[in-house]
Amino acid sequence: MASKQLFDPDPIVRKYAAQLYEQVEPLPLISPHGHVSPALFADENYRFGSPAELLVIPDHYVTRMLYSAGLKLEELGVPTRDGSAVEQDQRSIWQRFAEHFFLFRGTPSGLWIQNELRTVFRIEEKLTGESAQRIYEQIEARIQSPEFSPRGLYAQFNLEVLCTTDAATDPLAEHQKILASGWQGRIVPTFRPDAVLDLNRTDWHSEIRKLSEVSGIAVKDFASYIAALEDRRAFFKRLGATATDHGVLSADTTPLSPAEAGRIFDRALTNKLLKGDVERFAAHMLYEMARMSSEDGLVMQLHVGSYRNHNRDLFDRFGPDIGADIPVRAEFTRALQPLLNAFGNHPNLTLVVFTLDESAYARELAPLAGHYPSVKVGPPWWFHDSPKGIARYLDQVIETAGVYNTAGFNDDTRAFLSIPARHEVWRRAICNWVAGLLARKIIDEVDASAMAAALAYGQAKQTYKL
Amino acid sequence: MASKQLFDPDPIVRKYAAQLYEQVEPLPLISPHGHVSPALFADENYRFGSPAELLVIPDHYVTRMLYSAGLKLEELGVPTRDGSAVEQDQRSIWQRFAEHFFLFRGTPSGLWIQNELRTVFRIEEKLTGESAQRIYEQIEARIQSPEFSPRGLYAQFNLEVLCTTDAATDPLAEHQKILASGWQGRIVPTFRPDAVLDLNRTDWHSEIRKLSEVSGIAVKDFASYIAALEDRRAFFKRLGATATDHGVLSADTTPLSPAEAGRIFDRALTNKLLKGDVERFAAHMLYEMARMSSEDGLVMQLHVGSYRNHNRDLFDRFGPDIGADIPVRAEFTRALQPLLNAFGNHPNLTLVVFTLDESAYARELAPLAGHYPSVKVGPPWWFHDSPKGIARYLDQVIETAGVYNTAGFNDDTRAFLSIPARHEVWRRAICNWVAGLLARKIIDEVDASAMAAALAYGQAKQTYKL
Amino acid sequence: MASKQLFDPDPIVRKYAAQLYEQVEPLPLISPHGHVSPALFADENYRFGSPAELLVIPDHYVTRMLYSAGLKLEELGVPTRDGSAVEQDQRSIWQRFAEHFFLFRGTPSGLWIQNELRTVFRIEEKLTGESAQRIYEQIEARIQSPEFSPRGLYAQFNLEVLCTTDAATDPLAEHQKILASGWQGRIVPTFRPDAVLDLNRTDWHSEIRKLSEVSGIAVKDFASYIAALEDRRAFFKRLGATATDHGVLSADTTPLSPAEAGRIFDRALTNKLLKGDVERFAAHMLYEMARMSSEDGLVMQLHVGSYRNHNRDLFDRFGPDIGADIPVRAEFTRALQPLLNAFGNHPNLTLVVFTLDESAYARELAPLAGHYPSVKVGPPWWFHDSPKGIARYLDQVIETAGVYNTAGFNDDTRAFLSIPARHEVWRRAICNWVAGLLARKIIDEVDASAMAAALAYGQAKQTYKL
Repeated sequence: MASKQLFDPDPIVRKYAAQLYEQVEPLPLISPHGHVSPALFADENYRFGSPAELLVIPDHYVTRMLYSAGLKLEELGVPTRDGSAVEQDQRSIWQRFAEHFFLFRGTPSGLWIQNELRTVFRIEEKLTGESAQRIYEQIEARIQSPEFSPRGLYAQFNLEVLCTTDAATDPLAEHQKILASGWQGRIVPTFRPDAVLDLNRTDWHSEIRKLSEVSGIAVKDFASYIAALEDRRAFFKRLGATATDHGVLSADTTPLSPAEAGRIFDRALTNKLLKGDVERFAAHMLYEMARMSSEDGLVMQLHVGSYRNHNRDLFDRFGPDIGADIPVRAEFTRALQPLLNAFGNHPNLTLVVFTLDESAYARELAPLAGHYPSVKVGPPWWFHDSPKGIARYLDQVIETAGVYNTAGFNDDTRAFLSIPARHEVWRRAICNWVAGLLARKIIDEVDASAMAAALAYGQAKQTYKL
Repeated sequence: MASKQLFDPDPIVRKYAAQLYEQVEPLPLISPHGHVSPALFADENYRFGSPAELLVIPDHYVTRMLYSAGLKLEELGVPTRDGSAVEQDQRSIWQRFAEHFFLFRGTPSGLWIQNELRTVFRIEEKLTGESAQRIYEQIEARIQSPEFSPRGLYAQFNLEVLCTTDAATDPLAEHQKILASGWQGRIVPTFRPDAVLDLNRTDWHSEIRKLSEVSGIAVKDFASYIAALEDRRAFFKRLGATATDHGVLSADTTPLSPAEAGRIFDRALTNKLLKGDVERFAAHMLYEMARMSSEDGLVMQLHVGSYRNHNRDLFDRFGPDIGADIPVRAEFTRALQPLLNAFGNHPNLTLVVFTLDESAYARELAPLAGHYPSVKVGPPWWFHDSPKGIARYLDQVIETAGVYNTAGFNDDTRAFLSIPARHEVWRRAICNWVAGLLARKIIDEVDASAMAAALAYGQAKQTYKL
Repeated sequence: MASKQLFDPDPIVRKYAAQLYEQVEPLPLISPHGHVSPALFADENYRFGSPAELLVIPDHYVTRMLYSAGLKLEELGVPTRDGSAVEQDQRSIWQRFAEHFFLFRGTPSGLWIQNELRTVFRIEEKLTGESAQRIYEQIEARIQSPEFSPRGLYAQFNLEVLCTTDAATDPLAEHQKILASGWQGRIVPTFRPDAVLDLNRTDWHSEIRKLSEVSGIAVKDFASYIAALEDRRAFFKRLGATATDHGVLSADTTPLSPAEAGRIFDRALTNKLLKGDVERFAAHMLYEMARMSSEDGLVMQLHVGSYRNHNRDLFDRFGPDIGADIPVRAEFTRALQPLLNAFGNHPNLTLVVFTLDESAYARELAPLAGHYPSVKVGPPWWFHDSPKGIARYLDQVIETAGVYNTAGFNDDTRAFLSIPARHEVWRRAICNWVAGLLARKIIDEVDASAMAAALAYGQAKQTYKL
């Protein structure tokens, strides 16, 4: 990445930004939330697939944009649910991607991919239809080189810790294997119980059965369900987990009486759910999870407001996570009040809140984080993890919440190779933003260095207890 | 307009912006959506009225601001519904406007009017109470000059195509006259059926009667209504239309069963509407219109969220379109889902969505356009078609949707003479914005030129199939 | 404050900003809305308490941030409701504050406090745990100096007028004392009837009893209640008031029939309120207050959208105003329509609207103010009264409403000593923003000077009839 990339062209801001970036650039990477598979690290000889398998097919940031331009997911090699044929020729998929790479002009995906090609694959040439096959070959050659293993890259990327996101029912076999291997890298699981909490999911019953199996507690009513969840949290904690994660459409946390919760749970078990049961149970379970976090100290992450699988036809044919999740408005002030009134002042609770509705940054999240000792504003999420998205986040959050009520950065990626690029964009963006305050004499140099270091490293480490 | 107007003062950004503007400035103007009357072009000898009739009385952007400062609409010559007397002296109206022109400091109306005076009327002097009458005379002299005809200005403005907005029941006599005249200018009608779709309008019955007349299909039930609408769309298409336009308070597109739609339509015909009928029918008709667009290929424009005629007293006395339409919040993710699930993947549908609720740009519209092949984000609309409004739009849309999921620019004006000024503001603003990315090394020069040209010209032409 | 503070680093913008600031800096301060106690001025020998009592304990902007970092309010000396012990040692409180002053990096509180220390107390040293006690002693010495009286500071701050905020039932004894004293300062009361309008408050009955007492009108039904309110407004007006103020959760202004209003009022008197009564009565009373304002000419201020006392445990222990008020979304277009349709065109009504939901600036408030002669957009409120908050406000309001439909600045503070700092931040921010337009050639120098002066001084004075 060019040395002044993302910095304001003004020479004063640029100078300060570069000075700050020089300070934070060597700091190790903390990755407290993301979706990289632990399998990459469980096998020390793990090798990546083709360039298309690495950079195109599984990256729904990429495939959604190509789809929006009229390409079919089949042409991009995205596997179908029913196994019907899709493009298998890796070079053809790559060629299509390269010919449409102009679509990513000015987007964070464009920025990450260019950065990744340059820093991870040492490719300076621009990706176009013309250069596509040359670049394909360069990537392929590098993937096959001996130093290009996930464990090798973990060290090369200067990672200090990488947290994965794992189902409540996951036996964490790969994490155990990593721990047993004696390898020095730190791959930490995160407890994500969505599949057992969301009564609306088609796999809820099978997940509950799995929950019984892995916990050894027969889940037959609400009490045994809670006991099994507590057992799993303890198991995750023993394997190093410091956090949970919850993806919900609404932030509502209104609790139910134990009897009410029990009745809904029973109706779920017997497929007799009534209208409103799903939403009321989801709200209650957020409340329960906060209660457990205030007891076991696992940091509670709350990702609010993604309407999943908006395109039903594509969902039916390709399943979830193909780039058709669309944000909706979110409300936090009233929704979180029950949870915060019960546990918000508890010294053991840390609640990291993420939003896709940026209008909530200054209106609700920064004021909540600027008051409750438990609340931290999560970093800009998903679409907003971009140069301008980061600037809007800082503009709207810091004046009210300060730097020290934020949770630092999450790369939130399933693409392991994009981690350095994402952290670099974040670090450049925060240095530039802090430099702007310094250039306007709102802070001094001591403040600026401390703020940049906190945003780049310290806040993530401290918030997530890593 | 001064050569660096709207560009960032930073010398690097300014230099790049000027270079990009030099590239896009000569491109012809595409005007795919607006409210200029085709009558201007039907008669080759058409002449404009007084300076006040040209620049003040019909421009509700202007009269609303003067009204907000305590002037009466009567003093500004705005005609009353009942014909009661209003100011007739054109020089007095102009004088009042000039004395209050300071109200427009920092507003886009101020910018457009100054630009228009300079480029169209060659007036460099600033408009004040003192200069008012001198400027009045200069405008008057120029209006009367022979080259100052709409057809002459069309060529002078470098227009490639100008789309009008026309009622579904309009016989398009002027468009036919233009086509028959052999004139080279391209004036294209747009199918705007609001008056026959909105059951709430007081003129709905009379519009339905007109619909029967112009289509030759007796509208007596829902089936004949749909047939008449399809007939009109085909008629518009034969006269060159490439698009429809829909102005709605809510983006809801939930369809009804044919039986339900028929029952509501019958209740409308017999003045027996029930509570909720208007909204449910409006939602269904958006769905129907998308169905028709996916069949006939007319681009579907959706303008959402203007609460019309907010000031009832003024509406009673002066009618609609006097500057008292006020935006409301808008929701798209859930509202558009029925339409998009039915037609959003259809290769023949183009849906251009406009919002007055800027919080939806990054949260809903850019993600929808960045996924569905049919969806394009319409340009900043109305109040937001301003230097800072355009910057906010680009900041919030492009990172997620990219340039190629936007619909380029609409001038959306009824003031023909303001068209070059509005396009110039847009083009300067986009060049400046793209220059900012280039100065920050987020894109290179090839990308920058392509993005500027796409936003200035290509996207509008392609999206609207012009 | 350093002479270029808050100005853009770009040399052109900075130069223009400094020139504009030189023009507005000497203008007297208008403080049309705030919460300074009139008691400071009633006694010419009034003296301030300890540095902690002055700058920490009563400032909920400060205590909320310290609380969010895990400090206890008791440790900060915040008094409890039940009188249970809290920290009494002023130097310890100050030490804790100083050690955590880094939390305020980049926040407006940090900026104000640093500015206040420098300009009011002549302290250049940075506040840290190390310097804490030295600075404590310097402040203490200065507080005890003879020129450090509120009346002396009023002159030194160049205040032209200072408006307080007073309960409807307040006898205004201190205001009368000030008026009788012959002192030249102008301390103006503001009529804030929330406690007698909000049926939800626990002190409503006692406030109604007080209302009867102070008005001499026995409030026993809705008619006598209205009469008593009108009497109090007249009383405030006689003592110089030019405005009222209303803090509400919702902007709804739907009126009730007199009979309905009467029935709800009777139910309130007899503690038999039904669900919805509180909200419907609040809406009706806003409508009534606008009716009264259109008759007596008192400017009506509307502060919408603060959810008070969000943290119930703290509220139970410490009472209101401890930094746990959190904003919620607000709606104005539909909510204000009943009021505006009845009184919005009335030449005697001025309605100043404040929001904590910034998404309403461009969407609703600027369009309303840009049309209705009665409506002015209030300045950025509370959390948003910060460098970036002010820029967002100007960016989103001025293009649509113009400068002349805004209400200038309110410092809105209970901290008298922070008034110059707050006005300085506002004035620097507006000069910098206007300089940005000038540097981009959107306005000329005449416009720029006029806009800066209007925003700094003229609009507040004129809007509030001061």
